[in-house]
Amino acid sequence: MSSSLTAAILVIGNEILSGSTQETNVSFIAQRLSPRGIKLSEVRIVRDEEEAIAENLNALRAKYTYVFTTGGIGPTHDDITAAAVAKAFGVRCVPNNHAKQLLEDYYAPKGTELNEARLRMAQLPEGVLLIKNPVSSAPGFHLGNVFVLAGVPKIMQSMFEHVETFLDEEDPLLSVTILCNQREADIAQDLGKVQSSFREIEIGSYPQSKAPILKVILRGTERASLDRAAKQITRIIADRNDMPQVIRQDD
Amino acid sequence: MSSSLTAAILVIGNEILSGSTQETNVSFIAQRLSPRGIKLSEVRIVRDEEEAIAENLNALRAKYTYVFTTGGIGPTHDDITAAAVAKAFGVRCVPNNHAKQLLEDYYAPKGTELNEARLRMAQLPEGVLLIKNPVSSAPGFHLGNVFVLAGVPKIMQSMFEHVETFLDEEDPLLSVTILCNQREADIAQDLGKVQSSFREIEIGSYPQSKAPILKVILRGTERASLDRAAKQITRIIADRNDMPQVIRQDD
Repeated sequence: MSSSLTAAILVIGNEILSGSTQETNVSFIAQRLSPRGIKLSEVRIVRDEEEAIAENLNALRAKYTYVFTTGGIGPTHDDITAAAVAKAFGVRCVPNNHAKQLLEDYYAPKGTELNEARLRMAQLPEGVLLIKNPVSSAPGFHLGNVFVLAGVPKIMQSMFEHVETFLDEEDPLLSVTILCNQREADIAQDLGKVQSSFREIEIGSYPQSKAPILKVILRGTERASLDRAAKQITRIIADRNDMPQVIRQDD
Repeated sequence: MSSSLTAAILVIGNEILSGSTQETNVSFIAQRLSPRGIKLSEVRIVRDEEEAIAENLNALRAKYTYVFTTGGIGPTHDDITAAAVAKAFGVRCVPNNHAKQLLEDYYAPKGTELNEARLRMAQLPEGVLLIKNPVSSAPGFHLGNVFVLAGVPKIMQSMFEHVETFLDEEDPLLSVTILCNQREADIAQDLGKVQSSFREIEIGSYPQSKAPILKVILRGTERASLDRAAKQITRIIADRNDMPQVIRQDD
């Protein structure tokens, strides 16, 4: 599957690594990237530690077209993403007047004090572009190929609308899902042969706990190859007296 | 929070990175490690690519006490974890007689052919110890500080029972959760002060979409410090005329 646009996500937060919060932002972002032809290639989840964040961010931003970070941009002591990003880029964290204005505009009508903790959310690396937060105003930011987003899913998702205006596009990654009741190992060899003759697409098979017990997913950018490969696979399944269900997804 | 036993998870699978499957093994493993005093420090999710798996595995196994991998040990062409682990350790992948026997014992009574695809699941790196799979027999394996597990949650979870017999233990990581209806930024400064006076514990605060709107989690190995810090935080909240709900978790 050829896609020259690639991406990584750096998830920041002890709450994910302790198991107290179930991570859900990765699948949301992944599903938004596919239609743009951007291939999510790697995810790392790290603790709220400046050194770990900076080091992993530098590894990822050197390797992929885009890096998205989630988490750690709130007002509390454990929100250290801005400082860590500044460290990774070798710049200072400074008061951002535009961010401060956004916070003032949001809190003033509510009569909420813009206290020290809230002002911390306007302390950002030098040279950033802000990312709009339609839910709670405290902005994300964009520096180089890095997009720094909130961890709360609702806020992160609202920010992603703005993020998309910064991203390039290529041919969308298309997929075909084939559901059937074959045991994976019974058709594995045949699937492998189809994969060998369609190098430009990715074929994955995933057992499921309930019927239909197997999900075969084909991904690629070329509709014609996908269709031909899907046809071969449905025939393999049909030859075993099974009736596969084929779902085309154009995103 | 001092814990000398650390861990990382390497999640292997395009289905997670495409967003078609929601990852859930991380939180399961995290929750099993805390009671043993093992701190999950990092997670990486990579594609079904031998080089990416081997490279990331080598980075993680050099850094943490234990590494758990999930995914890629099935019978199909995209199941390449065994080969990648062999590459990472610089050993060969060879037929494992014990694994083959387990497969035979499982499939023979069902009258299922031990075909080439199924036999692939007994092709393992040299020198491994097997990890029992009570669900579907194809074993995981253990090499050095690396534990290679299935990706299907039900199977991975059943394997983890056996994995636990290999793991060391330290003082369990305890936690106290305080639920309240404070806006994070209103108590952020006070929380920061409590954190400063209790360096041995980790205090995190997490806004929630419904009431109670804030979850404060304290983690550490010393029950007495946790209790004292929790008491200070509940007083901060009570002083704001809110009634915090305190949940102790001894795992």
